[in-house]
Amino acid sequence: MLEAAADLFHKQGLRATSPDHVMEASGTGKGQFYHYFASKEGLVHEVLQGHIQAIRIGAAQVNYDVRSWAGLERWFATHAQLQEAFAWTRGCPFGTIGNELAVGDELVRQDLSLLFEVVRGKLALFFAAEKAAGRLSGNADEIKLADFCIAAVQGGMLMAKIKRDGAALATTIDAAMSYLKTFRRRPEKARTSR
Amino acid sequence: MLEAAADLFHKQGLRATSPDHVMEASGTGKGQFYHYFASKEGLVHEVLQGHIQAIRIGAAQVNYDVRSWAGLERWFATHAQLQEAFAWTRGCPFGTIGNELAVGDELVRQDLSLLFEVVRGKLALFFAAEKAAGRLSGNADEIKLADFCIAAVQGGMLMAKIKRDGAALATTIDAAMSYLKTFRRRPEKARTSR
Repeated sequence: MLEAAADLFHKQGLRATSPDHVMEASGTGKGQFYHYFASKEGLVHEVLQGHIQAIRIGAAQVNYDVRSWAGLERWFATHAQLQEAFAWTRGCPFGTIGNELAVGDELVRQDLSLLFEVVRGKLALFFAAEKAAGRLSGNADEIKLADFCIAAVQGGMLMAKIKRDGAALATTIDAAMSYLKTFRRRPEKARTSR
Repeated sequence: MLEAAADLFHKQGLRATSPDHVMEASGTGKGQFYHYFASKEGLVHEVLQGHIQAIRIGAAQVNYDVRSWAGLERWFATHAQLQEAFAWTRGCPFGTIGNELAVGDELVRQDLSLLFEVVRGKLALFFAAEKAAGRLSGNADEIKLADFCIAAVQGGMLMAKIKRDGAALATTIDAAMSYLKTFRRRPEKARTSR
């Protein structure tokens, strides 16, 4: 049920997905559904907590544990590949839910906010490690760079979904990487220490 | 009715807004509604065409007719201000609809796609003019820079909506402006020709 729900939320959003849709897609019945979830809100919460946990432990479709600039490129590229796999008809599973949020959806918003905080933390760790190794400018703010990465890829994925075309996403990823690389530095002692 | 619908779509999205909601918010009845619109789809189309027309003629809340780098900064900043005016509870009226799109929403998608093409065209005109004046690198691609601007501000607005906080949007705008400014050039003949 969680998998079917996650897929439907990704495909058509939260609002358009009813418990009935989830039961139909997963071949389950009301008894089972309400045994596991008190309500649709409970289901949404479980789905998002599942995503957060997968991101935390490195079991998500995207590898958030970036360890190199090539890994950062792959992080960006994987977003594009996953979206292309749906012929650009779907956006990011998290961004899709994020833009649907209305004032009353405070629990969902908190889950999503936490999810993006976990992602930000992982990306920021990469930039912090680069800084510590002297490979990133001391003026760079790892949290800000991580926020920029997330916003760039989210905006690019949204445009790809609207256009059914990945060109603007590719452009945005290239631009983001160029910007991020302006903070790269050659470590002073790199050659002697190796 | 169009104004009430635009506001509801912005506030809660397309899917959560029924013709009844629009009638209630605009104080109109079924007779009037179906006199003007064949269906909800017709209403959505009219709302989006209204937005596109406003952007085209420069009557939108955002000034898309950018003529200077300060104007570009204002273009970015206005997005943040408009979102802050709703205490970050709403995203971009267009991005919100964009992320809701499902496979069947082809008419809406085409309208939105056209809307963003008009925006892109206006931003690209600025970059092209800067290039023609020798104030932008000849290597810069005005269409790509425009796509990057749109993706960056959309991604930033989405994160602001999810976080109910404008910090990541501000960071993204700063980063985008820094990146764009790397293409600025001092025109060779500027001083002698003035």
